[in-house]
Amino acid sequence: MAGEKPLILVCNDDGITAPGIRTLVKIMNELGDVIVVAPDGPQSGMGHAITINGILRCDPIHLDDGPQSEYSCTGTPVDCVKLAVNVVLPRKPDLVVSGINHGSNSSINVIYSGTMSAAMEGCLEGVPSIGFSLCDYSWEADFEPAIPHIKKIAQETLAKGLPRGICLNVNIPKYEGKEYAGIKVVRQCQGNWEEEFDQRTDPRKRNYYWLTGKFVNYDEGQDTDEWALENYYISVVPIQSDLTAHSQRTAMQNWNFE
Amino acid sequence: MAGEKPLILVCNDDGITAPGIRTLVKIMNELGDVIVVAPDGPQSGMGHAITINGILRCDPIHLDDGPQSEYSCTGTPVDCVKLAVNVVLPRKPDLVVSGINHGSNSSINVIYSGTMSAAMEGCLEGVPSIGFSLCDYSWEADFEPAIPHIKKIAQETLAKGLPRGICLNVNIPKYEGKEYAGIKVVRQCQGNWEEEFDQRTDPRKRNYYWLTGKFVNYDEGQDTDEWALENYYISVVPIQSDLTAHSQRTAMQNWNFE
Repeated sequence: MAGEKPLILVCNDDGITAPGIRTLVKIMNELGDVIVVAPDGPQSGMGHAITINGILRCDPIHLDDGPQSEYSCTGTPVDCVKLAVNVVLPRKPDLVVSGINHGSNSSINVIYSGTMSAAMEGCLEGVPSIGFSLCDYSWEADFEPAIPHIKKIAQETLAKGLPRGICLNVNIPKYEGKEYAGIKVVRQCQGNWEEEFDQRTDPRKRNYYWLTGKFVNYDEGQDTDEWALENYYISVVPIQSDLTAHSQRTAMQNWNFE
Repeated sequence: MAGEKPLILVCNDDGITAPGIRTLVKIMNELGDVIVVAPDGPQSGMGHAITINGILRCDPIHLDDGPQSEYSCTGTPVDCVKLAVNVVLPRKPDLVVSGINHGSNSSINVIYSGTMSAAMEGCLEGVPSIGFSLCDYSWEADFEPAIPHIKKIAQETLAKGLPRGICLNVNIPKYEGKEYAGIKVVRQCQGNWEEEFDQRTDPRKRNYYWLTGKFVNYDEGQDTDEWALENYYISVVPIQSDLTAHSQRTAMQNWNFE
């Protein structure tokens, strides 16, 4: 790679026209050669879904006058990364970035997140990968104050690398008109969603439901992503694809399977 | 719960009529009061996807003469568990079981698997949860020889419990006409899928793709799920929803974010 600019793959889950990814493309254009392969529409909450019972399309698209190449894909965020690495890109990228998500992917949100699954898929392919999320669901959210921090985190990741199977989950507090407190490397907060299903009746008198709910934090630690975000820090959680609960493996030595 | 039979929720990702879930329902009927809430069609490869941009339906269905109650749901496996726990069930279940999946969910398959995401959702709700998979993709697979082992694992899980946020990923080798070698509690094997996209042209001359690929094992350990399955053992991997890579958190202490 000596002398060459890094090759950077950009993906997201809000769709290729979302303001968040348009901001991320601009930042990455300053760091390397950028290729965008992103969903043609919203894919939030798709987790690590892949398309195995249907076909995928992936076609070039021109959205602005930047130097990047862009492809719009019918699949999930994970499909996009697989297609990019195996079909679209001329070589293995040096960095995969996903986002900037419109909304938080801290704590347990990470396992539902298409944004983070794209980053996870990148690191499974052996590429240093980062998912970025702004804790502001508004389509008109102010991404500007986060830009220098996103650039710095991407630069450090390019310089230091990441082991295969480990990627970064970066969450940025909603901008409150003052400079961010800094960047903290923290752990995933223990928390969960408490669902409330909104039951309704359709015009044909059949029941249906909307999924809603609220996040509940079980974790009082001051070394978590939720704590960092509440204190106006940008949180960085390294996350891994190895889900083994080693403590429980030990605890199960006295289980009787005979 | 003294004197009461345990309440068991059954889910899957192959759809409510799949032979795998029909077998699991029969086994669970011997252990407790069973309620089935499962997808109305195939949801393989859906990972931890949830339905946030559309509606959900969940309606009673009668499929056989067993004592269980059953509900067919339009959503993903994770939607099914959320609907079951919050809308359908009279109280929090004592056990969530998902499967029996038609095909392996060992190693990295766990993160793409709707079957395992249903189990993960169960343990996030604080319920001991298990995903079962048979390493045989055939619709006519022979589940019979696995039945006593599945029953035993479910009984031990009911007796011993599991911590919140930890569930069990159980994989069963394809039956080869002789008794299984036993049950091993192991770790998730390090491996990945190497994709090969099958590019085709539709009748209107537009390109499209089918996702295919093969599993590659990077891991020579004799304490992994892949090793256990190759040696005809049933593998049990406790997996966790906390994805924090603690080793990488330490490694990042010398990263420069200033």
